[in-house]
Parts: sequence; C-alpha cells; structure tokens
Amino acid sequence: MHIVVTGAAGFLGKKLIQALLEKGTLRNREGQEEPLTQIVAFDVVPLSGVCDPRLMVRSGDICNPATLQTLIDAQTDSVFHLAAILSGQAEQDFDTGMTINCDATRQLMQRLRALPRRVRLVITSSVAVFGGSLPARVTDQQVWQPQSSYGTQKAINDLLLADYSRRGFLDGRSLRLPTIAVRAGRPNAAASSFASGIIREPLNGETAVCPVNPASRLWLMSPNRAVQALIHGHQLDEARLTQGRAINLCGLSVTVEQMVAALRRIGGPDASGLIRYQPDREIINIVNSWPGDFTADYARQLGFQANDAVDELINEYLAEQRPPADG
Amino acid sequence: MHIVVTGAAGFLGKKLIQALLEKGTLRNREGQEEPLTQIVAFDVVPLSGVCDPRLMVRSGDICNPATLQTLIDAQTDSVFHLAAILSGQAEQDFDTGMTINCDATRQLMQRLRALPRRVRLVITSSVAVFGGSLPARVTDQQVWQPQSSYGTQKAINDLLLADYSRRGFLDGRSLRLPTIAVRAGRPNAAASSFASGIIREPLNGETAVCPVNPASRLWLMSPNRAVQALIHGHQLDEARLTQGRAINLCGLSVTVEQMVAALRRIGGPDASGLIRYQPDREIINIVNSWPGDFTADYARQLGFQANDAVDELINEYLAEQRPPADG
Repeated sequence: MHIVVTGAAGFLGKKLIQALLEKGTLRNREGQEEPLTQIVAFDVVPLSGVCDPRLMVRSGDICNPATLQTLIDAQTDSVFHLAAILSGQAEQDFDTGMTINCDATRQLMQRLRALPRRVRLVITSSVAVFGGSLPARVTDQQVWQPQSSYGTQKAINDLLLADYSRRGFLDGRSLRLPTIAVRAGRPNAAASSFASGIIREPLNGETAVCPVNPASRLWLMSPNRAVQALIHGHQLDEARLTQGRAINLCGLSVTVEQMVAALRRIGGPDASGLIRYQPDREIINIVNSWPGDFTADYARQLGFQANDAVDELINEYLAEQRPPADG
Repeated sequence: MHIVVTGAAGFLGKKLIQALLEKGTLRNREGQEEPLTQIVAFDVVPLSGVCDPRLMVRSGDICNPATLQTLIDAQTDSVFHLAAILSGQAEQDFDTGMTINCDATRQLMQRLRALPRRVRLVITSSVAVFGGSLPARVTDQQVWQPQSSYGTQKAINDLLLADYSRRGFLDGRSLRLPTIAVRAGRPNAAASSFASGIIREPLNGETAVCPVNPASRLWLMSPNRAVQALIHGHQLDEARLTQGRAINLCGLSVTVEQMVAALRRIGGPDASGLIRYQPDREIINIVNSWPGDFTADYARQLGFQANDAVDELINEYLAEQRPPADG
C-alpha cells in the first residue's frame, strides 16, 4: 500500500503517521489488509522526528498542481488529507482559507480523478459546518448552517467529496471531527485552541486564558481517538456508507465547567486555579455556534467510538507527556 | 437603481426582465422603492425581443473576469444571477457544470466584494440540493445530500453566498426554486424538462415522452410565480433573513398522475392521450432523489407564495400563448 498524508507535520498528521507505521497494514480496495510499503508525509514544512524506511518526507505548496502530480501517482492507494487553515485563521484571512481549504482540496480531488484506479481519500471535516438555531442534540439529518468561513469551506469539501465519490472519481470519506483535546504543544490558530490550553497549561504550571464562559458546551475527542477514527474511516467497506460520505463522529459532550472539575480531580486545585476567564467576543461567537452534542447514530452504526469521560482525555495527555514530548 | 441580470436570454431571465421593466422600481439598500434606470441583460447569447431604453443587452463569457468587470461596477445596486448549466447537462459534463455553476458564481461574488458598497445579489438554487433518505415533507432543517452534480454545485453556491453575506461582502439571497412548469418553448437540458413537456406538447397536439412513472411526486411552481419570488426575494429587508440566506420556496406538491388529470380536465382526453411513458433510468434516479413536498415554513413567514393548483399552472401557460409566443 502506497499512502500519502497531507498536513503530515501537524499535530494530528504526525500522530497518524506514527500510528500507521506501527500498525503496518491498511485495507486495500479488495478489503484485504496489505502491508504499508510507502507513506509520503507532505506538509509546508518537512515532518521531523519520525524515522522509518517506509517514510518519504516531502515539503512544498499544496496549491501547486505540479507538486500534487509528483506526490500522488498511479501507485497511490490512499490519501489522508489533513492539510488545512485552522478556524481562527480562516476567519481572519478569508482568501487564504478559501485557497488552502477549498481550492487545494479540489485540486487534490482532480489529481485523484486523473489516476487510472479509484484512490481512497480520507478528509477531515468539522462540527463547524453546523450553526444557527440548533436542537440540544444534533442529529445526522441536521442542515448545515456554518457561522464561520472555516465551517463553510469544510462543508464545500464535504459536498465535493460526495459528488466525486458518487461519480466514481475516487472513494471518499469525510470525518467530522469533534474539537480535539488535549493537544500537546503550544496554542494554535483554531478558535477552539483554548479547549486544550485550559487543561494543558495548568498541568504544566502555567496560567491559561479561557475565552468562553464555564457553561459553554463542547463536543470533544482525544487525539488518539481521532487517529483511530481516521484509520477506521479508511478501513470501512464502501458498501456500508449508505448515509453519505460525511460522518458526524461520536464525541464527548461536556461543559467547560466539567472540564475544569476534571482538571481539579486529576491536577488538584493548584492546577484548576490557574484558569483565567477573559471573554473574547469573536471566539465566543464562533465556538457557541458549534453544537455541543450529537446523536452520531451513523458513526456508531459504522463502529466509530467516543471517549468515555473527560478524565480519559486528561489522562491520555499525561501518559503521552511521560516519555519525551512529541509535539 | 442599476440592475444586472445574468442568464438574461433564458426563459426565466427574459420573463424577469420583462417584469422588472413593467414594475419600474426596486427597493434600494435603504428600503425605499427607487426607479430602475438601467438593466444590464447579460447572457452567452444576446437577449432578443425586448425593447426598452433602460435595457442594455450584453453577451459574453461569464467565466471571464474582465467581462464581469465591465458588466458590474460601482453603479451596480443589485444582481440577479440566473446563468447556469442545467441539471441534465451538469450530470453529463462535470467540468462545464463546475466551471459555470460554481467558479463563475464565485467570481461574480468576488467582483461584488471588490465594490465600494454592498450589492444585493439574488441567486437561484434548487431542490436538487436534497436527496438520500428523506421524510415525506422536507423541513427547513433538512440536511443537504445532493444526488447530482447540479445539486452539489447549487449547494456550494448557497454556502458561499451565506458566508459572503455574513462577512459583509454582499447582501445575498438564494431562492431554492421548485421545478418550473409549464415552461414555454422547447425541451431543455434539465432532468425535469418533462414536467413542462407532458403539459405543453399535448396542448400543442404533439406527443410527449414521460420518463418517470405516474406516481412520481414533483414540487412545482409556475414561471410567473417564480419571477414574483425572485423580485420578492430581492425586496426583503435583510433583517428578516434570520434563518439564513437560502430559502426553500413554497411550491405545489403533485404527482405526475395529478398533472395528467389536470391536463385531461383542461385539454380533454385527446391531449392527455398524447403522453407516452418511457422510463429513463438516469432521469428517474435524479428526479426521484428530489423531495416532492416541503413545509417551506421560512418562505411562508417571509411572504413567498405558492400556486394553488395544477390547473393554475396550465392556465397560466395557455394565457401566455394567446398573444404571440415569447419563448
């Protein structure tokens, strides 16, 4: 199996590549597990810190069609497309968001379409496709009404992926990821960056700013669960995708207050005391437009799994920090 | 008021221009009715058969950004964007559909964004954005799941229009038109072309082929109602658009069988006897994926109106045929 991962140097990309190398096989078009012989890790900066003879590290501009031509060829079996402009940046810079999140994804699909065999394409979408007046629990039949450019761009990709798949140009799966927490490393340009920060920074003895109020409800997933979901999404038999190509993943519905309570349970009052509430209207508007709870029936039926409790998210972060940090 | 209409030489475009010229005013940004001083009628072929000193007929390629620059300038108040590749052709020629239905619409929005003041943009969308497993009556909260490239492209436009509007680049309204019947003239490249043909051809003494079965349920609107809806959609105060920019219009839910019964009532058994059922799998797949009934609560609340009965659709067609045909 020849695999390409875009956004490979990102937090999730690197974790996915490590998980793929460890797993060693993926299901091919015939449904058979087949050894991974090559993983092309592509990003705007080269992936570092992962060494394996099956790994080819490449860097460049994903918007350049010539780059896509050299990355992806007739040998390519599957592509995990994680490269994206995050929600905060896509809101601040509309054109860059459109170029990277929409145009590059469409060019990638066009590249796959030009190949002699149908490549499996796994992309990430987001709960940010939802917004407006929402029920307490969002079902799989809920209309999309993004309240951000990021959500708009992800929804456009979901539509294109479905049509490219329907027409037989490729075999696509779009996973609507919950907010990923706890991410290792530093804050990023996602509007939801605080969801990791309010756990990570206090556990490291630093203060953390929470820009939303304690009652805000979030839909969360741990990084390892997200990587498992990406791989599971790849492995699914196409015949099971009876309700479309975009899948609202199962997640964990918790309030910021519940997250802080879990932080206090695990890190003690010294940790939870390091959170400062500083409401940020721009972030509140984006984050509060996202649903905080989903039925995710389709995902459950397809065998995706959610985390059991916030404590699991925090403990996963702590367990990964024991060896030298990877992020 | 300076108005631009794209797709001006099409059936609906020409009717809209005639209605606008007759009405003579449109509501400006301040909510005041203001005289129409210029209507630019743009299409790939020049609009013919309409003469008025306020009318400027232009033809060209809508994909050419230079063309858009000359059509639309700082004087432009409102744009009605009707230019499109129809559903049947968009299914047969994916790339042309993407270029005209998506890329040209985005370029148009980019042109409006570059202007010093917010232009009002009315676009047409379609019930083809829906599909998959659907309830008997589709609500305004129903997720989009297009089963055709046309529906995909229209849904992408709806998403972009909402985001461009939210960001203040323009003031957009997307009207999800039911299937328009009875169209004058000849069959066109829409998968729903038969919905007009099975009424129009028999009334003119010609046989008509019906490619779907008599129980197929359609969501219909007469041409004059559609033109009224386009104008009403323009006139709406932006503050009323609380549930988004894409509006599922009110229509008439009828089966092919009910259409044929109305044809028999109005045209007699000689007319209804001219219909031949020849199932066409490709058209059945597209048309049966569209919902046949909607609650259309948002549209009703905004004051849009549906036709009362199929007979009204047929009588409107007959009334327009009495003077020399315009299509």
